[in-house]
Amino acid sequence: MGLIVQKYGGTSVADLDRIRHVANRVAKTFDKGNNVVVVLSAMAGITDGLLDMAGRITASAEKRELDVLLATGEQTTAALLAITLKSMNYSAKSLMGYQAEVLTNRDFGNARIVDIGAGRIKKLVKKNNIVIVAGFQGCDSDGNITTLGRGGSDTSAVAIATAIKADVCEIYTDVDGIYTADPNICKKARKLDKISYDEMLEMSSLGAKVLQIRSVEFAKKYNVPVHVRSSFSEKEGTMVVNENVEMEHLVVSGITCNKNEARITLKKVPDQPGIAAKIFSPLAGSGILVDMIIQNTRASGLTDLTFTVAKTDYNRALEISKKVAEEIKAEEVLSAENIAKISVTGVGMKSHSGVAAKMFSTLANENINIRLISTSEIRISCVIKEKYSELAVRVLHSAFGLDKE
Amino acid sequence: MGLIVQKYGGTSVADLDRIRHVANRVAKTFDKGNNVVVVLSAMAGITDGLLDMAGRITASAEKRELDVLLATGEQTTAALLAITLKSMNYSAKSLMGYQAEVLTNRDFGNARIVDIGAGRIKKLVKKNNIVIVAGFQGCDSDGNITTLGRGGSDTSAVAIATAIKADVCEIYTDVDGIYTADPNICKKARKLDKISYDEMLEMSSLGAKVLQIRSVEFAKKYNVPVHVRSSFSEKEGTMVVNENVEMEHLVVSGITCNKNEARITLKKVPDQPGIAAKIFSPLAGSGILVDMIIQNTRASGLTDLTFTVAKTDYNRALEISKKVAEEIKAEEVLSAENIAKISVTGVGMKSHSGVAAKMFSTLANENINIRLISTSEIRISCVIKEKYSELAVRVLHSAFGLDKE
Repeated sequence: MGLIVQKYGGTSVADLDRIRHVANRVAKTFDKGNNVVVVLSAMAGITDGLLDMAGRITASAEKRELDVLLATGEQTTAALLAITLKSMNYSAKSLMGYQAEVLTNRDFGNARIVDIGAGRIKKLVKKNNIVIVAGFQGCDSDGNITTLGRGGSDTSAVAIATAIKADVCEIYTDVDGIYTADPNICKKARKLDKISYDEMLEMSSLGAKVLQIRSVEFAKKYNVPVHVRSSFSEKEGTMVVNENVEMEHLVVSGITCNKNEARITLKKVPDQPGIAAKIFSPLAGSGILVDMIIQNTRASGLTDLTFTVAKTDYNRALEISKKVAEEIKAEEVLSAENIAKISVTGVGMKSHSGVAAKMFSTLANENINIRLISTSEIRISCVIKEKYSELAVRVLHSAFGLDKE
Repeated sequence: MGLIVQKYGGTSVADLDRIRHVANRVAKTFDKGNNVVVVLSAMAGITDGLLDMAGRITASAEKRELDVLLATGEQTTAALLAITLKSMNYSAKSLMGYQAEVLTNRDFGNARIVDIGAGRIKKLVKKNNIVIVAGFQGCDSDGNITTLGRGGSDTSAVAIATAIKADVCEIYTDVDGIYTADPNICKKARKLDKISYDEMLEMSSLGAKVLQIRSVEFAKKYNVPVHVRSSFSEKEGTMVVNENVEMEHLVVSGITCNKNEARITLKKVPDQPGIAAKIFSPLAGSGILVDMIIQNTRASGLTDLTFTVAKTDYNRALEISKKVAEEIKAEEVLSAENIAKISVTGVGMKSHSGVAAKMFSTLANENINIRLISTSEIRISCVIKEKYSELAVRVLHSAFGLDKE
């Protein structure tokens, strides 16, 4: 008995059969005496199809109008699920983003939720309705339709769970939880029963695509328990919760691998104040996000500067870097796309020393060269050659005792 | 130089090429110094596709949710046209029904517009935006999405034209105006330059599918000039205007044919007070609309009662009639589906006598038997055997001097 938010992703609502399956699942939860608010994505492939359609008109579609177009995807699934539940004699009502009062800023295509006036949802829930909210969409203060960016339905769900003080926010997806590593790469990967918000944040930002990172930020900020689970099984998934809750006693809870970055190195740069700004200002000015930065000082007042950018920004970043290199008289620009960033993440690192040393020695034992290193309080990342990435994930998974028995 | 509402139907926005064509047409009107508000239907076939999808879930989809589903059709075309116009460097903004403040009653699936708060449209127009409104949809006072029924975009357009005091409401369609008869039946049919609201009302209700009848009611009530024209040519179409405006001097302006009715006759009914109520009350109770009614009194206190209903209601109506016939001891029930209603319409009838006589004699000359007759101030309708319908249209078209030279 409780108030449960259930979010179903695109593969879970991909066709009428699956929508019926979702309806059964929702009905079952409701029949157990719970109140249920459902948040839906568009059918798998629909959002891409709409983007493609806009792309055939122009390469740079107006963002406000693109959001109007994209919002139809979730509107469709919300209506179809409501029709299905009504046909099963459940009292169901769909709400679009603006009707659910999901208020965002005006950053079309990537809007952030600023407030949810949950009055209408609460009222409908109180009357024992199953409320179905179109995910991914909201509206700005002028009533324009906005969308929340890729994976935005996760954030819709967590934000709504926060606003209505739900007991739990269940995220239904096509995997059955958060794994210690990608099971496609590491056969010994195992599902975690629990993970902290902070670990999930790090892992989301490292490319684990189970949850949109903003949804985790939201959950952490408002302490909403998030349950990541499969819509295709009844098994418990992974609870994403506050660190205070008793965690499994793991120093490291996951190994992730990100192949979406490329590396650029400016060699023999004069080691003077202001040089870094000369390099990174034009990149920032072009909207290019730089991830890792390493500076190796050489003798003779020269230094090597290495950084990574997203592969999608690689060509533009390289062009800008070459121009800057000429201006500041760097010797040459080296670059590589065939890199991978391997990360180990775990709140246990805060209290356990030696994690970095173990990571480096484990990779060294396999003769894997480390090109860049970066760390946070609960994460260590190493850039290596892409071809070693699967091997690296597997040996680190073993070394940190994550292999399932 | 003026304020023009342009409505484009489903075939005019059936794909991206046609939407580009519409964008060019809108841009051209704008470039001439006009302000333009565009009202769009869904792409041809989309609404039926969505209805079909809902039909695969249940035969009786919840109407509120069906409207949410259907509204995506116009949302899509509105966004696509806005994206196209923006890509051509025109300032365009799409508005959904609720954003355009198209307020309706709560009759989901067939809602009536009760008010249009045109503030936002006017504000955007004032800033020289081309405003694109999703047709067919509105919202009730609680913000629920509603739709206006088949052809509802016509009504959206005329209602918006009324609210913003547009100079003209142009209805773009796949025919180039209102014809004196269906050109597929009568090769000599010709396009009318002008037609009165009342004539258009009669012709819409008789099955001429160019304009939704409610849109004509709206136009008449608020005296909005409506220009029905083709989106595939530059030719002037037909102006639907107040009768006061100088009309062509035609006694009859159009011949229409409706094959969507069926006839039911109860023979030898006791001619007593209350008998008609006994027959028509159960029909009305079942939501069956009766169109024409004729009562032929026989000698000996008996009467024959004949009426027509829509073919879609025919089977139910027949069943009810047979039950009633037994109760009131009518002799027998006859019925026929192969009938057609031929009508001549024209405001000129008000001042010209002899129209009915001419109609009857013209049909008699061809040995076409008339089964039922009904009239209004500006219309005479005769029910004949369906097989004579094309012939009847052609001979009446000639007899009333409508054939083009």
